[in-house]
Amino acid sequence: MEFFNVQPVQDALNLVYEHWQPTIQTELLDCRLALGRVTAIEPHSPIDLPEFRRSTMDGYAVVARDTFGGSQSLPAYLTLVGAVVMGTSPDIKIGTGQTVEIHTGGMLPSGADAVVMVEHTQRVNENEIEIMSPVAPGENVIQVGEDVARESSILPAGHRIRPQDVGGLLAVGITQVAVSKRPVVGILSCGDELVMPDEDPAPGQIRDINAYTLAALIEQSGGEAHVMGIARDTFDDYQTLARTGFAEVDMLVLTAGSSVSTRDLTRQVIDSLGKPGVLQHGLAVKPGKPTILAVCDNKPVIGLPGNPVSAFLVAQQIVVPLIKHALGEIIIPAGTIIATLAANISSATGREDRVPVTLRQTEDGWLAEPVFGKSNLIYTLVNADGYIQIPLNSNGLKAGTSVQVYLFQGRD
Amino acid sequence: MEFFNVQPVQDALNLVYEHWQPTIQTELLDCRLALGRVTAIEPHSPIDLPEFRRSTMDGYAVVARDTFGGSQSLPAYLTLVGAVVMGTSPDIKIGTGQTVEIHTGGMLPSGADAVVMVEHTQRVNENEIEIMSPVAPGENVIQVGEDVARESSILPAGHRIRPQDVGGLLAVGITQVAVSKRPVVGILSCGDELVMPDEDPAPGQIRDINAYTLAALIEQSGGEAHVMGIARDTFDDYQTLARTGFAEVDMLVLTAGSSVSTRDLTRQVIDSLGKPGVLQHGLAVKPGKPTILAVCDNKPVIGLPGNPVSAFLVAQQIVVPLIKHALGEIIIPAGTIIATLAANISSATGREDRVPVTLRQTEDGWLAEPVFGKSNLIYTLVNADGYIQIPLNSNGLKAGTSVQVYLFQGRD
Repeated sequence: MEFFNVQPVQDALNLVYEHWQPTIQTELLDCRLALGRVTAIEPHSPIDLPEFRRSTMDGYAVVARDTFGGSQSLPAYLTLVGAVVMGTSPDIKIGTGQTVEIHTGGMLPSGADAVVMVEHTQRVNENEIEIMSPVAPGENVIQVGEDVARESSILPAGHRIRPQDVGGLLAVGITQVAVSKRPVVGILSCGDELVMPDEDPAPGQIRDINAYTLAALIEQSGGEAHVMGIARDTFDDYQTLARTGFAEVDMLVLTAGSSVSTRDLTRQVIDSLGKPGVLQHGLAVKPGKPTILAVCDNKPVIGLPGNPVSAFLVAQQIVVPLIKHALGEIIIPAGTIIATLAANISSATGREDRVPVTLRQTEDGWLAEPVFGKSNLIYTLVNADGYIQIPLNSNGLKAGTSVQVYLFQGRD
Repeated sequence: MEFFNVQPVQDALNLVYEHWQPTIQTELLDCRLALGRVTAIEPHSPIDLPEFRRSTMDGYAVVARDTFGGSQSLPAYLTLVGAVVMGTSPDIKIGTGQTVEIHTGGMLPSGADAVVMVEHTQRVNENEIEIMSPVAPGENVIQVGEDVARESSILPAGHRIRPQDVGGLLAVGITQVAVSKRPVVGILSCGDELVMPDEDPAPGQIRDINAYTLAALIEQSGGEAHVMGIARDTFDDYQTLARTGFAEVDMLVLTAGSSVSTRDLTRQVIDSLGKPGVLQHGLAVKPGKPTILAVCDNKPVIGLPGNPVSAFLVAQQIVVPLIKHALGEIIIPAGTIIATLAANISSATGREDRVPVTLRQTEDGWLAEPVFGKSNLIYTLVNADGYIQIPLNSNGLKAGTSVQVYLFQGRD
């Protein structure tokens, strides 16, 4: 019989954070290649953006007070003294009663403080323009620094770079950005029954898939996955492989069979890797109860159950937050879809359940159908669109309840 | 004055789909490198998974009917005839009254049809086991093909591969998967005021950022972005650059300044690239009204407004769906966060507005604060966490309304 002193996920993670000081390394990357990476340092703008006053309209640059009172029936008359050529600094200075033609994005000439849209003007002759609608100072103009001011912070540290952030950095001339290095996460599988995915398993053997499911999840979360191979169910082989790879990784994930002896082996191997060793054995989650959390010589080591569903769902809850912590990433909540639960789900209080669901669109919105299945069955996850969470202190959810579905992510 | 015969986004996309037959190319990829790619063909399982009956528990493999009636006070007695070694096919066949020791994941010996958990047994001596709880046939056993049956479809075509799908493919021995080739999307910027991001703009000039914001969005959506450079505001230069790159891309995106003359130029250049040419000029969206949709010689060509906010938000609505269409991807809705709107937003009926918002967590849940700003300002997007959509026939939303916030994506 086994008794676990189970802990909720956040308490277990906090135990790791107490014993682990991630040393975040920084690297400089071309902004154009930095999508999805995490800023290591808060970048500041070296310039005012824009650096000059720009028109937001096609029209005429004016001194605003010259247009006051102008109307369709009684227009203001201005003298046309030139045109702003796109991409150049106009050498014209306009005075009272004068105007220049300008296009969207053009640089305002000195003296002008507003732009009248071409739709509100009429050309009388070569040198004279009628203004049929007044403009306030600043109207249809982007001021210097209106987009971003010089020296101001443009992104927080710990921010995952999105497409628009690439543009924001380049716009102020920052072509290289300091990002956190990807933490290297080693993955070691253990089990006498495991063969490599490209081998033909003999009867009694199965392909090791956890290593690759976890590697994809780790890469998706910003880590660099190192698949370390398959250890056999002996302390010597398991410990040798774990120790050999341990120096080269920032974090180690072990997936091992779910038999009691293999779990004991995992515990012993982890304790042999460094201090303080195992911090927690047992999570208040289903699936995933027999998870082990440890820190060895300032590196987190996580022992995941061997069942593919447990391994994946626990890795989402434990390994992904550790990677984000190593990256120094500010965590933004994932998007969810609100759906109606299609079937009753029972749960036990004192543990948090994650139940995979498929989504189906109906006239009344999304319907979430639980995918029930043993946690040994990878297709429980393959056939699901996302999962719902049943909280620690709930004994289940009734069909018809409105639930939040957390979508499983591709790379999008 | 310009009049657009504006169309809602879906109608405009449908126009493109009517004139475009994407030719989806396929490539074979190692499953371990296929995360985020889209299946081109529905893969089928070559095997039953698992290929043999497996135990889900540590315990004893039995003939279920031998255990019927067994209880704590009156156990059933079975003769222990061996143990299943992990990763091997047991050469023992058990008969009535017999049992073998088995571990989680072990292969059931022939003759056995259930497993009794070790917790419900007691070892009397070397050869005898007490069974204190009955099991039904099949209990604690995964049947052959229970995870996935031989010949069955394991993923639909058009499915974006997630971490668990990598595992699902490898589990049945599929190490290479046929995915759609990434459509190559050319991006050409036009404007006399534009310089490359690593150049120092002279007064009147600005850095071209749209090309890189769009490139990141295109890569994130499954396309391959080809940045084609900057064309000057003349038909000859613009047309030459567009035509030169056109042969090598599957789709072309033009971003040009917002002045009337540049827009006319874009239209002319597009019409010169092939038949039928421009299909639609004007979208019922804000920002992004002056968008151009075209098909030239069976390639979509999209003319985006030059304002970075318009260019990005329209690309999300137009270019991303075209890429997914080219990939043959089944579209799964993006996750949203439900939030309370912090300020009134006005809108006009007959157009769909996208308003960037920042999210703030409060005691009552998420609060969405609109980021108002001219669509020339890239930092309107950099400072936002997502956007809300105001439907075609709404004239706005009141503060306090519950809204769905579509999160801007990093790569996660």
